[in-house]
Amino acid sequence: MKNTFGNSVSVTLFGESHGPYIGAVLDGLAPGIVIDEAFIAAQLMKRRPAGKISTARQEDDEFQIVSGVFEGKTTGTPLTILIPNKNIKSKDYAATRALARPGHADFTANVKYHGFEDYRGGGHFSGRITAALVAAGAIVLSALEKKRITVGTHIRSIADVNDREFDNIAEDIAKLNAIDFAVLNDEKAALMKDEIEKAAEDGDSVGGVLETAILGVPAGVGEPWFDTLEGVLSHALFSIPAVKGVQFGHAFDDVKKRGSQYNDSFYISDKEIKTATNHNGGINGGISNGMPIVFSCAVKPTPSIYKEQNTVDMMEKKDAVLSLKGRHDPCILHRARVVVDSVASLTLADLLALRYGTDWLAEN
Amino acid sequence: MKNTFGNSVSVTLFGESHGPYIGAVLDGLAPGIVIDEAFIAAQLMKRRPAGKISTARQEDDEFQIVSGVFEGKTTGTPLTILIPNKNIKSKDYAATRALARPGHADFTANVKYHGFEDYRGGGHFSGRITAALVAAGAIVLSALEKKRITVGTHIRSIADVNDREFDNIAEDIAKLNAIDFAVLNDEKAALMKDEIEKAAEDGDSVGGVLETAILGVPAGVGEPWFDTLEGVLSHALFSIPAVKGVQFGHAFDDVKKRGSQYNDSFYISDKEIKTATNHNGGINGGISNGMPIVFSCAVKPTPSIYKEQNTVDMMEKKDAVLSLKGRHDPCILHRARVVVDSVASLTLADLLALRYGTDWLAEN
Amino acid sequence: MKNTFGNSVSVTLFGESHGPYIGAVLDGLAPGIVIDEAFIAAQLMKRRPAGKISTARQEDDEFQIVSGVFEGKTTGTPLTILIPNKNIKSKDYAATRALARPGHADFTANVKYHGFEDYRGGGHFSGRITAALVAAGAIVLSALEKKRITVGTHIRSIADVNDREFDNIAEDIAKLNAIDFAVLNDEKAALMKDEIEKAAEDGDSVGGVLETAILGVPAGVGEPWFDTLEGVLSHALFSIPAVKGVQFGHAFDDVKKRGSQYNDSFYISDKEIKTATNHNGGINGGISNGMPIVFSCAVKPTPSIYKEQNTVDMMEKKDAVLSLKGRHDPCILHRARVVVDSVASLTLADLLALRYGTDWLAEN
Amino acid sequence: MKNTFGNSVSVTLFGESHGPYIGAVLDGLAPGIVIDEAFIAAQLMKRRPAGKISTARQEDDEFQIVSGVFEGKTTGTPLTILIPNKNIKSKDYAATRALARPGHADFTANVKYHGFEDYRGGGHFSGRITAALVAAGAIVLSALEKKRITVGTHIRSIADVNDREFDNIAEDIAKLNAIDFAVLNDEKAALMKDEIEKAAEDGDSVGGVLETAILGVPAGVGEPWFDTLEGVLSHALFSIPAVKGVQFGHAFDDVKKRGSQYNDSFYISDKEIKTATNHNGGINGGISNGMPIVFSCAVKPTPSIYKEQNTVDMMEKKDAVLSLKGRHDPCILHRARVVVDSVASLTLADLLALRYGTDWLAEN
Repeated sequence: MKNTFGNSVSVTLFGESHGPYIGAVLDGLAPGIVIDEAFIAAQLMKRRPAGKISTARQEDDEFQIVSGVFEGKTTGTPLTILIPNKNIKSKDYAATRALARPGHADFTANVKYHGFEDYRGGGHFSGRITAALVAAGAIVLSALEKKRITVGTHIRSIADVNDREFDNIAEDIAKLNAIDFAVLNDEKAALMKDEIEKAAEDGDSVGGVLETAILGVPAGVGEPWFDTLEGVLSHALFSIPAVKGVQFGHAFDDVKKRGSQYNDSFYISDKEIKTATNHNGGINGGISNGMPIVFSCAVKPTPSIYKEQNTVDMMEKKDAVLSLKGRHDPCILHRARVVVDSVASLTLADLLALRYGTDWLAEN
Repeated sequence: MKNTFGNSVSVTLFGESHGPYIGAVLDGLAPGIVIDEAFIAAQLMKRRPAGKISTARQEDDEFQIVSGVFEGKTTGTPLTILIPNKNIKSKDYAATRALARPGHADFTANVKYHGFEDYRGGGHFSGRITAALVAAGAIVLSALEKKRITVGTHIRSIADVNDREFDNIAEDIAKLNAIDFAVLNDEKAALMKDEIEKAAEDGDSVGGVLETAILGVPAGVGEPWFDTLEGVLSHALFSIPAVKGVQFGHAFDDVKKRGSQYNDSFYISDKEIKTATNHNGGINGGISNGMPIVFSCAVKPTPSIYKEQNTVDMMEKKDAVLSLKGRHDPCILHRARVVVDSVASLTLADLLALRYGTDWLAEN
Repeated sequence: MKNTFGNSVSVTLFGESHGPYIGAVLDGLAPGIVIDEAFIAAQLMKRRPAGKISTARQEDDEFQIVSGVFEGKTTGTPLTILIPNKNIKSKDYAATRALARPGHADFTANVKYHGFEDYRGGGHFSGRITAALVAAGAIVLSALEKKRITVGTHIRSIADVNDREFDNIAEDIAKLNAIDFAVLNDEKAALMKDEIEKAAEDGDSVGGVLETAILGVPAGVGEPWFDTLEGVLSHALFSIPAVKGVQFGHAFDDVKKRGSQYNDSFYISDKEIKTATNHNGGINGGISNGMPIVFSCAVKPTPSIYKEQNTVDMMEKKDAVLSLKGRHDPCILHRARVVVDSVASLTLADLLALRYGTDWLAEN
Repeated sequence: MKNTFGNSVSVTLFGESHGPYIGAVLDGLAPGIVIDEAFIAAQLMKRRPAGKISTARQEDDEFQIVSGVFEGKTTGTPLTILIPNKNIKSKDYAATRALARPGHADFTANVKYHGFEDYRGGGHFSGRITAALVAAGAIVLSALEKKRITVGTHIRSIADVNDREFDNIAEDIAKLNAIDFAVLNDEKAALMKDEIEKAAEDGDSVGGVLETAILGVPAGVGEPWFDTLEGVLSHALFSIPAVKGVQFGHAFDDVKKRGSQYNDSFYISDKEIKTATNHNGGINGGISNGMPIVFSCAVKPTPSIYKEQNTVDMMEKKDAVLSLKGRHDPCILHRARVVVDSVASLTLADLLALRYGTDWLAEN
């Protein structure tokens, strides 16, 4: 289904970086969900570039909901969000149209779309499109919160600087959702900002790891084969530009453990079944076990850098050298974390609707 | 769609560990693909336990194709593979039915299916089901090979022992597909086997990382949002029991790099556009760029161990202690690699059929 | 998704007329549904040819459920039904392989599958495959009945003989499900059988209309666009071989009415909203309104006739004359009605699961 | 997928009658398709009410393509069309909000969406939404025409007045697409208009049958089970408000024939295989046979009439009487035919892309 994701609840993304609008269609939402426009705006604000560590284009991200909402609540019919593109400087791109930016989709888009792609500002591949995802996700995040399902993402690492681990997850999620630079340890936050600024000074960029925790997902969500909770979440998460790895728990490190260390033993607490550890990230056999769902995304360093790079001229089929001008982020992790939250919430809403029916999300 | 994956080419899995059959339905295959039963049998053999490092149940994996093949070739209609379960000892399980094995799906299946699940031997969650995936994948792997697309997986690490990196990928794939214990460096292979045997002696298990390379996928496969090549592959890969992480290139390590180091610069070679490095694992913007597709799967240590573990009695809702009997693998990486190849090939067949049409896979 | 239908609850069909098995995979069924093997057998019996009016091949339709059922109840994992093909006379077909039977899929299959199709007995296009649909449908029909949803189909017409209209629908459904030749008026039943026998004597065949009523579907099922209740039902119904038209209510006749005659006015009865007439067949705006769902299927006369027919030799690309031998039904309406019931029940199960969640069908 | 239809090529509809915009997202279109805005406008004009026989609200149907088109051609990424709603008189509806209009979706929407639906002007159920379908369909119709696939629909009957049958289909399609009131026989056109005007004078409405022919679809499109060409087309066609029946050929009449009369015998003409008659509407076994695809839709009389009708007050749950004011069409067949063409073209584009690959539609 390409640019549509989800079955019971689905989201369709459209738009190009330099077209008139980007947007999203959310379908399958329960009727009666209250639309909190201030929260949507606040989420968009978190995605928006700000300060020295984000020098990309400034957009005020005015959004308009043009269908699916009536008298402030969802109707149950497709909800469409439009976000106009305003601060567009298309001339920046025409000159370098033929030069494939390394790490970007310029070359692959050119092959896939036979040269008909809107190349300006990355076109449909632009991180700009994630604004629509964030707006759509905000609606679902609000609704999930009323069902006591909360989502929070921290920057687990940038370059070699690591944040502290999740501890009291409920408190950590609350803290993360209240701050702009989503790091749990304030000293580490400062060190990470230093890394970003240093990279920016060098005309370079940095990457890192985002880690997300979700509380309140009932046990029993996900399928044994194919539509495992891990599989469906990762499917959606890899859409976020620059995400190149997804792990549940700390899998790539923890697979060095032995089974006796890795296994999460069960115990009874207040008549509920819990696990003593959570190496499995809240998922056994592809299905939620009621523990916090924890995963992380490896986010590559932003490919747009000012340093000179070798590349090719796609039209002339010859080697070339590229020096990017314009406005580019030296790091996107602090902006992307709200995209991760949005993608995770949309995915959960779909799986929960499948399990509990289309109206569940709005039920009291 | 739960236990079905794929759109143009799809696979549906069915069966329980202790039922009469497990099997798969492959739909959307091009007509005219030659069925190489010897190759299917050889692939099943690779998945089968053998020797000290695999002490699990022995099955001869006789398979029968009961639809979709006529006179040795695919008809284009659904192809169904049946594999009978023979070596079944269901009594082993009844006694411990109420005790949720840590790291297994016993508890989540019990919640999801309200106690109606076939709990014997893991039921529908059993690794046994992957035999059907391997048989289905073998058919597609043969067909892809005729289109010069080849797939190979090595054990990149077990515990702290690391194999060498991929080097000449074409040769490496050929080597891996010719050997049983898929490690490129023979000395490391021996060390890994030691790790497995040591764990087995301790009644414990080990995990590790499987890394896969795919050659010959043309540039232009995948979609910008949601159905990215990374997203679709990871969706399928997380179905493989014990896979808890998927990364493209060596993402979780490489995100520590700066953009100038991570970006894969383009150059022209023989009139084709290539990249000097392949940190992106052959994928830009969700779309194949013509370079080898390289990804790895974090495979957790097998959860079935002989060591005593704390758990709960799900019926009585009380704490309990579990001592597993029966036959269990101390490591599954050497068996799982052929499952990874199969899942990857099925996913690719689907995306290639979407792009080039349903008949492409059998065309000359 | 081709040979798979449904999202929340799906059915996958496989098999060829002369292969070892035909079968179906039912996925997404709620766990805990009781399997009534006698009812499945009884439904298969209704589909089976009998007497002078059905001279086709005799099969005892032994079926085996090989996955998804444990201790007599559904597990919630894919349920697979196998039905062996036994009474096979493949030689009948080889001689006339090149001659496209008019009205059959021989020619279109040959084009679509490039000559690789299993042509024996119609292969995957054979009405034989509907036995698997009937078995799958029987499981769902039993479960729906416990939710007070009942389905019944009568032969509304054969040639120019018309059955009486539905009257007391609950009683009519009960009657239809208790008899073999599903006609409400016994005199008309006799006349219809005469028509069939006369056609058979002439080496010819007859068609007609099947009309179905469904009681107990709650208001609110279906979607405004695309997944309308009419659209989803018709999508599935047109799979039934020989169905060439689907109408809700008596649409093709009733569209001659004026709006004031056609509109179904609402009224209150026992605090429930009902309609005085039911020209809309229980559906407004694509969504069930709580009235009986009523639709009919136009079933073309069986294309296999003994009369000489003009056709072509597909290999030689030349005109030819065909005289069919073997065993062919002069009419299939009395056998097809249970297929219609099955297809309708599978479709409803899917839409109801979407609305009320995956467990609804088995809840008390 | 609810308000989304199609797999390889999909369309998503959104919007309410009295919201700011209605629109559609077309995904999966081949890149490089020329956008003919004048043709889109002309198609929208055909759907627009005009003259005595259409007294509904006047809209100029300005449309804006806000994504997926660059320099006048499709990019291959989602194409979004917005059509603003301008001529809105929402006050007309508030007074009668509680009164369910017979034949409309007011009651079913109220049940499904628990009272949160936008009831003004039919909301998301309004025929107004079909303007977006027509705009989307126009893009695909243009592209299909370059592949020599043409589509045309005539009003086969209104009340008891019947148009002549299709004769030279290529010429008939050309004629139909050049005229506003799509009737092949001019005298019958006049009689039909009389019927409409008479009904309008009586405050009533009329229905009828639309018949469509499609030329140039290659043999081999469609699937044997579920995704039959009939099934997929009808699935989409039933979305068109007021369509209550779909038949291929003249099925509901022709099933009275015997097999020897109904079967379409094959013959060779210019080395191609054709059929002497076309009772099967160009489809055998669910797959196109290369003959014209012919189907008809039963379109019920417009439910909005001025005559007093019995209904219920949904809020008070009591009987009521409804006298509709405002602007209503006495007949919609002459407006709906271009919707049928659009829906058919979108469906074909999807199935052709599945068979021939995503780029086929734009290839030379």
